[in-house]
Amino acid sequence: MPRTRVHNLNISLDGYAAGEHVTLDEPIGGAGRLFGNFDGRFIHGIDDVDAPVTVDRALTTLWGQGIGAEIMGRRKFGPQTGEWPDDGWQGWWGDETPFRTPVFVMTHHPRPQIDFADGTSFRFVGGTPQEVLRMAQDAADGQDVRLGGGPSSIRQFLEADLVDFMHLVVVPITLGRGVSLWEGLGDVADRFTVESITSPSGLTHQLWNRTS
Amino acid sequence: MPRTRVHNLNISLDGYAAGEHVTLDEPIGGAGRLFGNFDGRFIHGIDDVDAPVTVDRALTTLWGQGIGAEIMGRRKFGPQTGEWPDDGWQGWWGDETPFRTPVFVMTHHPRPQIDFADGTSFRFVGGTPQEVLRMAQDAADGQDVRLGGGPSSIRQFLEADLVDFMHLVVVPITLGRGVSLWEGLGDVADRFTVESITSPSGLTHQLWNRTS
Repeated sequence: MPRTRVHNLNISLDGYAAGEHVTLDEPIGGAGRLFGNFDGRFIHGIDDVDAPVTVDRALTTLWGQGIGAEIMGRRKFGPQTGEWPDDGWQGWWGDETPFRTPVFVMTHHPRPQIDFADGTSFRFVGGTPQEVLRMAQDAADGQDVRLGGGPSSIRQFLEADLVDFMHLVVVPITLGRGVSLWEGLGDVADRFTVESITSPSGLTHQLWNRTS
Repeated sequence: MPRTRVHNLNISLDGYAAGEHVTLDEPIGGAGRLFGNFDGRFIHGIDDVDAPVTVDRALTTLWGQGIGAEIMGRRKFGPQTGEWPDDGWQGWWGDETPFRTPVFVMTHHPRPQIDFADGTSFRFVGGTPQEVLRMAQDAADGQDVRLGGGPSSIRQFLEADLVDFMHLVVVPITLGRGVSLWEGLGDVADRFTVESITSPSGLTHQLWNRTS
């Protein structure tokens, strides 16, 4: 059975995975410190990257394995709100995106699909988490679907009990404010078996596998 | 630069990675307990395997990433010694091998190449570690070369300082006897930066990256 998976989701010790206000200058909404230790990620595997294979990087290689589509929240795609302005915005990633699959951007505001030569296509869709997941699963053609974040969109899928696997990375910092992954999810851990390891860099990696 | 890599090499607390005598009934030479915890490995990635993504399994996915050829010792290929008997032996793996790349079997006894439909080809070659590595690198076409073991053959490459990366798995058992990975290698760790983590199963994973 194909899975619905979350990868490399960095959260602070106080549970925040993004800042409150996403702007052009601050894509993570002022929570960029969450990613300070994470340069050199091996999201497409350990070849072609000339860096030591650390525990942190080794685990990031799960990100792309067997993934046929991604679902992301609108705030991951860009800082705009409301109707899409006519500004030619095609996401944060320039001409070469990391995804290389269909990417479903959840939004109430329709917009034409954007296709890239590398296999990425951004498709702007509305609907419930169940409905969007069904679209992504169709596009993934038997492979797994990745939930790409941000935390608000992942929380919606957790609330609907649609998440099969999560790789969380607990970063040993506090942010004091931001978008919480856990808000309103008092008993989510009961549905998962959780393994934790702490890597030599001080990051704690948690692998959450849905129990049933 | 392509790397020369070792993956998922299980060793006991007393440093043994195989038993002394390989037979048809005991491919690891009586050291099969080393692999007791390792069912369900994700050597081709986490898709297509219906099992929880544990830390142990996650790290095994490094095995095939960016690998273009493998080098193995003759004792990994089969239990025969001396001249090859006319017994139709094609390795332990049946019709479907895990490798899917050229595999260079180190032997003093020549034998015709064996090709499989899945991309695996066993090529029986003699020579120094440097010479065999050069053949494997040519076949790998810019990708990395995996040293597949057993421990005696990996030790030869460590002695010649040809190993760039090793993923060792220290299994919390003792064997008392067998083929040691470390015999004669008193200062090998000086050439590597080593990260260790212990997974919830009790296995200790070590990632050895060559320093220079």
